[in-house]
Amino acid sequence: MNDMVASAGAVTFAEGYKAAGINVGIKSSGKLDLAAVVSDTPASAAALFTSNRVVAAPVIVSRERLAVSGSCQAIVINSGNANACTGRAGLKDAALMADRLANCLGVEPSLCLVASTGIIGERLPLPIILDGISVVAEAAHRLGGHSAAQAILTTDAFTKEAVAQIEIAGSVVRIGGMAKGAGMIAPRLVPHATMIAVITTDAAASPDFLRKSLEQAVAVSFNACSVDGDTSTNDTVFLLANGASGIPELGSGEGDDMELFTSSLTQVCTELAKMMVKDGEGGTKVITYKVVGAANDQEAGQAAAAMAKSLLVKTAFHGEDPNWGRLLAAAGYSGAQLDQRKIQLQIGGVKLLNDGEPQSANLPAAAKAMRADEIEVVLELGLGNGSGIFYGCDLSLEYVRINSEYHT
Amino acid sequence: MNDMVASAGAVTFAEGYKAAGINVGIKSSGKLDLAAVVSDTPASAAALFTSNRVVAAPVIVSRERLAVSGSCQAIVINSGNANACTGRAGLKDAALMADRLANCLGVEPSLCLVASTGIIGERLPLPIILDGISVVAEAAHRLGGHSAAQAILTTDAFTKEAVAQIEIAGSVVRIGGMAKGAGMIAPRLVPHATMIAVITTDAAASPDFLRKSLEQAVAVSFNACSVDGDTSTNDTVFLLANGASGIPELGSGEGDDMELFTSSLTQVCTELAKMMVKDGEGGTKVITYKVVGAANDQEAGQAAAAMAKSLLVKTAFHGEDPNWGRLLAAAGYSGAQLDQRKIQLQIGGVKLLNDGEPQSANLPAAAKAMRADEIEVVLELGLGNGSGIFYGCDLSLEYVRINSEYHT
Repeated sequence: MNDMVASAGAVTFAEGYKAAGINVGIKSSGKLDLAAVVSDTPASAAALFTSNRVVAAPVIVSRERLAVSGSCQAIVINSGNANACTGRAGLKDAALMADRLANCLGVEPSLCLVASTGIIGERLPLPIILDGISVVAEAAHRLGGHSAAQAILTTDAFTKEAVAQIEIAGSVVRIGGMAKGAGMIAPRLVPHATMIAVITTDAAASPDFLRKSLEQAVAVSFNACSVDGDTSTNDTVFLLANGASGIPELGSGEGDDMELFTSSLTQVCTELAKMMVKDGEGGTKVITYKVVGAANDQEAGQAAAAMAKSLLVKTAFHGEDPNWGRLLAAAGYSGAQLDQRKIQLQIGGVKLLNDGEPQSANLPAAAKAMRADEIEVVLELGLGNGSGIFYGCDLSLEYVRINSEYHT
Repeated sequence: MNDMVASAGAVTFAEGYKAAGINVGIKSSGKLDLAAVVSDTPASAAALFTSNRVVAAPVIVSRERLAVSGSCQAIVINSGNANACTGRAGLKDAALMADRLANCLGVEPSLCLVASTGIIGERLPLPIILDGISVVAEAAHRLGGHSAAQAILTTDAFTKEAVAQIEIAGSVVRIGGMAKGAGMIAPRLVPHATMIAVITTDAAASPDFLRKSLEQAVAVSFNACSVDGDTSTNDTVFLLANGASGIPELGSGEGDDMELFTSSLTQVCTELAKMMVKDGEGGTKVITYKVVGAANDQEAGQAAAAMAKSLLVKTAFHGEDPNWGRLLAAAGYSGAQLDQRKIQLQIGGVKLLNDGEPQSANLPAAAKAMRADEIEVVLELGLGNGSGIFYGCDLSLEYVRINSEYHT
């Protein structure tokens, strides 16, 4: 029931959405830097925002508007400037962006949200952005999802788009999302991302339903990935449901549909999160860290996250060196309970630790397994039933180049 | 009253201590790899060990022995192999090292401790180490401190040695310490360090007194520094007090002497910690992060630590780029309370944020200040009286080279 289809243009895959991306000159490179996503009708909406206590102006504005309305019809997103740490003037700029979009579309300002990503601490070039909003609102069309996905990128090497399609009550329901993010990536959206994602669906659902479903999906996707361990001031995930599929409202009838929807939403979020990690600045490998047998799920997640974020682990993967002691050390300081005599560890299916005893004969096989682009680490703690997963990348020379040469 | 003197040979600066460092072949390079520090008489002792739940064999052995005796007469330390994650065999090896030292010196085994640093997960080359212990115990002499400091190094570029001298009750009291550590450095010794430090003093003090004094000193030195955010399985700080100065036992009379001693011990630990950060793998700068005006000291420490450990902050310092938004983002996700409208931020004495408003005109001056080898960041939160400090280094291409090419 869950067919994957081609994902380019994902944010306009669901019925009743239009989008576009244009260049207005925020990025001097001439690359696309302003996107709009527009629903034909007001959509039920939920959003999760960064847990960083330094919060960018667009996050403040979008959070306030959504809290009031629970609905959203359109979102404007600029890249190249985060409008963060820009004081009172920045707050006005963010509100003016959303208001201009509302004005162009002829909808209530409360139905228009805003997001920004890029350099922190600089004022937006507001005149060109406001003029651009008129253009991008006009340009939004059914096949515009891919250009929108391009326009939200910063240091990203590629667009992140994913879709899922399910059948509910005899009708086809579509979910599609786009995301950006390659650096300052260690999302802890509230209730736990500089990632920005917009997910649209033609399902019908209440804002409450959407929020619960989004929290579940984000917990095991965006909130379980890290490029550099830095949680941004701008992380935002929007979920819009405009009901264009014609299905009855989710959550009002049998419970199974909710599970099916959430499972598909999770799949879309997980695909987007893994793409973010794959595009992690300078990264060359995606590593999935699975922890099982922990005292509980929370501790399993902590241990998986600590391994994924460790600089020594990340450089070992970059060097394709099965220096598994670094994995153990990271799990050991994660806060998770462990008994080193009970630990099993595998890298790429090769066992390196058995009941806490090193399996040194397997090191060459592990080194070979580490040459892959995608590698799985499995740590079994042998203590309980807790399990957790986290996605990370390696740390390359290129990462340091990108981030020490990305000047203000 | 607190005169700094030349620090080479610091661990034998206090009266009544001998030391030596030799090469036994653990390091194929031929560099020194086995050290012994010996007190003429049994010394009152305290130690703090890693809070990592994966604990190296020598940590387990030393912790147990010290808990029983509260005393120590000699310590053997090898570099090149951490004897961590080596199972039951590794535990025996660590005990045999300490026992051999006791046998050579003709003292009780409970008075001999052991520490190891280097690669995780490989068995020690025990025969050459046991033979070497006989040699190094014999070689220990009053001027051997510097060779011992060399023999505990791993990826370090230089030895870390520091001394202090004070007068208590009309007598000269000396404190001297050596440390190693350039990678896997984010000590959280219990009650909060792959650093290893041995500090010796000829003061007289109970193990209890020493422990309290050491905890205070470590909290603002070793536990307030990070190279890579990775807390090791082997971190250990030993403090020995043999009473050879002839002063009455500290803590038994007036309280001022305790403060004076702890303040000097803190000075020695802070110097050693800053040397560790300066020698941080691939690092080219030492950055001191001061946070003031926090809600409380703990939150100030959290904010300072988050800035020091952020990869984006570390690469910005490497690039000498006043990308202060990265500092704010790190403080924002640290867990410390903050109100971005009240924040003042300085880099190298140049104000970049005033009541939350960017001071963009000062960016060129800040960029110039960042060219220094030692830079101070001051973040004022304007909320309360909490203050904290943390020491960090930059993140260079060399760091990635060292750690992706350091093969098992």
